[in-house]
Amino acid sequence: MIVVKIGGAEGLGIESLCADVALMVQSGEQMVIVHGGSHQTNVISEKLGKPPLFVTSVSGHTSRYNDRETLEIYAMVVAGRVNTLLVERLQGLGVNALGLSGPDGRLLAGRRKSTLKIVEGGKRKVLRGEWSGVVEEVNVSLLRLLLDQGYTPVVAPLAISHEGEMVNIDGDRAAAAVAGALPAETLVLLSNVPGLLRRFPDERSLIRIIENRNLEIYLGYAQGRMKRKLIGAGEALAGGVGQVILGDGRIEAPVSQALAGRGTVIR
Amino acid sequence: MIVVKIGGAEGLGIESLCADVALMVQSGEQMVIVHGGSHQTNVISEKLGKPPLFVTSVSGHTSRYNDRETLEIYAMVVAGRVNTLLVERLQGLGVNALGLSGPDGRLLAGRRKSTLKIVEGGKRKVLRGEWSGVVEEVNVSLLRLLLDQGYTPVVAPLAISHEGEMVNIDGDRAAAAVAGALPAETLVLLSNVPGLLRRFPDERSLIRIIENRNLEIYLGYAQGRMKRKLIGAGEALAGGVGQVILGDGRIEAPVSQALAGRGTVIR
Repeated sequence: MIVVKIGGAEGLGIESLCADVALMVQSGEQMVIVHGGSHQTNVISEKLGKPPLFVTSVSGHTSRYNDRETLEIYAMVVAGRVNTLLVERLQGLGVNALGLSGPDGRLLAGRRKSTLKIVEGGKRKVLRGEWSGVVEEVNVSLLRLLLDQGYTPVVAPLAISHEGEMVNIDGDRAAAAVAGALPAETLVLLSNVPGLLRRFPDERSLIRIIENRNLEIYLGYAQGRMKRKLIGAGEALAGGVGQVILGDGRIEAPVSQALAGRGTVIR
Repeated sequence: MIVVKIGGAEGLGIESLCADVALMVQSGEQMVIVHGGSHQTNVISEKLGKPPLFVTSVSGHTSRYNDRETLEIYAMVVAGRVNTLLVERLQGLGVNALGLSGPDGRLLAGRRKSTLKIVEGGKRKVLRGEWSGVVEEVNVSLLRLLLDQGYTPVVAPLAISHEGEMVNIDGDRAAAAVAGALPAETLVLLSNVPGLLRRFPDERSLIRIIENRNLEIYLGYAQGRMKRKLIGAGEALAGGVGQVILGDGRIEAPVSQALAGRGTVIR
């Protein structure tokens, strides 16, 4: 069982990914695909006259403020566009893909974070009306039910809160939660870099292997979203996943190549 | 087993519908919800700078021309917005709703119609690059698998062609195909009128009962989209559905009231 996370950033070859997944599924591998969609949400939000508002948290992270309207655009894009186009492409390759998002059958349930602590103009502020959250429970029996019948689940990064509200979740950590809950043998996190780089963005400085016990030390090398991938990797390994591979999503056969050791292997 | 189709038009009470569905599901009824979304697609297409193009077929019907870009906006809206918001609301009411669209697990498979025969300026024309289709196969085993585990499927009107392409389908006829394939005891088609009217739009002229063998005679009373509902009703009855009810989607408890005979009953 392999869980693959494919990012929403530009430059990721969806065609190569889907062709690779199709070969693996057709050779009998069970797979779950989790995807992102932040970049496309920003593009469509802009077009709809609701440009994304970026805020800086007190811990220094930059993120999009998800008011209800932004959440609904995000849901529309990740569940209706990114997910549907992935399912269509996989179906075209003979994979019986089935798209879901977290609210479907309570696949991903968790806690809503309704406030953000941010820094604006040097001052600390509390921003209310945030619609994001953290996954606390994965409906593994739903995934197993579908996998056992030959379906390949394709999961959009939304969750349902304990109060029944839809919330935006981080795709990497959603993939980690899914992989940890199954648990999968391998979680592959694809992005537009070759893995964790010792000297970002120098691709020759790729770190090949990280032992889980040393993961915290390596957090210092992580830039931007890579930090969340490492946090997700730690969560997945704690959940019982055999290994997590940070792979290059821009190359041919990105999953097979990651499994062959191309990328950063965390174990 | 009841299949309910809820339209995408304005004025339909999603809150009342979901509350009604929740009571029925919680009392042990198995239900499948099918929805539309054409109206919302037109609104969002307009906002995205891709206003819908309406054409008149040689048989006199007006419909939206679905080029690939329009199809992708439609998919985004029906699968990512209408479907997701319905699932969220049902989950909030304690129903374990699970959203799907036709390409998911090849739930709805069929034939793509890639050309439209239209009339423009009095002349007949063939318009290519159309992305709509007709459902020919329903994956009943997927629906049964989910229903048997207590999930309530919520279905967006998209299908997958035999060539693996996503296509736009009519929601009423999709609901009829689903109801006929299961088969359901009852198919309830809700819209923003009380049922079939003898003298449209005079709501006092509601036709209460239609015997299936006389259905063709009543086609003459049908205006606009109501024609497709009657065609769908005939298809559903031919598939083994016990009765089809054209109900009022604007009222409280619209499904229960339709089942109690409020609307046009076709049997």
